[in-house]
Amino acid sequence: MTARFTGVGVGPGDPELITLKAARLIREADLVAYIANTSGESQARHIAADVLTGAKVGQRELPVPMPMSEQRDLANRVYDEAAREIRAALDAGEQVVFLCEGDPLFFGSFAYLLIRLEADYACAVVPGISSVNAASSALRLPLTVLNESFAVISGRHSEAQLVDVLNTHDSVVIMKAGRARPRILHALATAGRTGDARYLEYIGRDNEMIETDVARLAHAAGPYFSIFVVTRNQREIR
Amino acid sequence: MTARFTGVGVGPGDPELITLKAARLIREADLVAYIANTSGESQARHIAADVLTGAKVGQRELPVPMPMSEQRDLANRVYDEAAREIRAALDAGEQVVFLCEGDPLFFGSFAYLLIRLEADYACAVVPGISSVNAASSALRLPLTVLNESFAVISGRHSEAQLVDVLNTHDSVVIMKAGRARPRILHALATAGRTGDARYLEYIGRDNEMIETDVARLAHAAGPYFSIFVVTRNQREIR
Repeated sequence: MTARFTGVGVGPGDPELITLKAARLIREADLVAYIANTSGESQARHIAADVLTGAKVGQRELPVPMPMSEQRDLANRVYDEAAREIRAALDAGEQVVFLCEGDPLFFGSFAYLLIRLEADYACAVVPGISSVNAASSALRLPLTVLNESFAVISGRHSEAQLVDVLNTHDSVVIMKAGRARPRILHALATAGRTGDARYLEYIGRDNEMIETDVARLAHAAGPYFSIFVVTRNQREIR
Repeated sequence: MTARFTGVGVGPGDPELITLKAARLIREADLVAYIANTSGESQARHIAADVLTGAKVGQRELPVPMPMSEQRDLANRVYDEAAREIRAALDAGEQVVFLCEGDPLFFGSFAYLLIRLEADYACAVVPGISSVNAASSALRLPLTVLNESFAVISGRHSEAQLVDVLNTHDSVVIMKAGRARPRILHALATAGRTGDARYLEYIGRDNEMIETDVARLAHAAGPYFSIFVVTRNQREIR
């Protein structure tokens, strides 16, 4: 087998929402890399823990310690160092996988490693269940019916941008709600869509929380892993 | 176990892109239902064929024959009849799964059965890999970086709506491109985004086709399972 660097989606949190392909590639890898906090804890590794118990003999792990910071240059130094270690493994002919929460190419950090390695090595991506699809499943709520339009937006956008998207699209998912929650709640009220919205935290994990009446939410920051799902309430799909 | 009706995503086409949870629930089900054409062929069943070889003894299948037609009342009669057969199984205490290509609640037919059954029975949904995430993985192309905005739109929208979305969002996925391909190509040119677009057919299947220069595409209808992925070419993510 040629040395290959593969971004592998492990899904939103439920260890059973890993695909058969991701499970196989994780077990077969020589080196398994993942983002961790500076204490070494990694949500992606936690999700894949059961799969990793069946890994091949001699498999190594590479936690990539990412400081909680908005500073891009700090993050870039961490990616540079991780890419250097991954290059060493690929130069030795190894299979390297990078575990990604959700999907590797949807609001994730895998892109930052891919761009550092894709010119020099064979690279591949195994898609994962994104929190968008996990949220609609948890709510048992169709994201789109018939010809409705649908947008995904980061909560980091301005309130004016949020209102504009809420006015333009039937269904809207707002990712990375966390610290933006007060701004998002205000934008929902301004667009007259508070009643169309549901709120979810930690989907598929032990501490999952769903609030179907977002008017009850405190106008305060929530956790990073939180999301709003906004759809038209009156659905005519029969 | 309580009788339960579960929509199960089987992903975009690659049989290995089924989740561990979907594979388990498909094997454990008493009745496996899926949309088929009037000759009995089913893409969803085809994707799950390997999983179904390990199914429990006595498992039954229910193909739901859907005529190729835009007439809603014809489709509704098919859903009514399928719901009637599924009710009989649930009333007998059985586990029923409905196989869904991609994700059950994203542009799929599962919503039409869910709405007919959710008031009377325990229902659940297992998310699947959507063609949106499968497309970006096949292209090895991040759908969103940093604070880019992202929209998904059906090709069935008007050209003016397509142009508006292309002008408003950094990344746009256009689903159900099929017969709308000439209109989509015209909208891309009008919005000045032909060079930002890639086109994919039958992602993850044996007949997968990727065209990174959409100016080469014929202005003619393509297959139903086709998709455009539009992103900014000049990415600054380092």
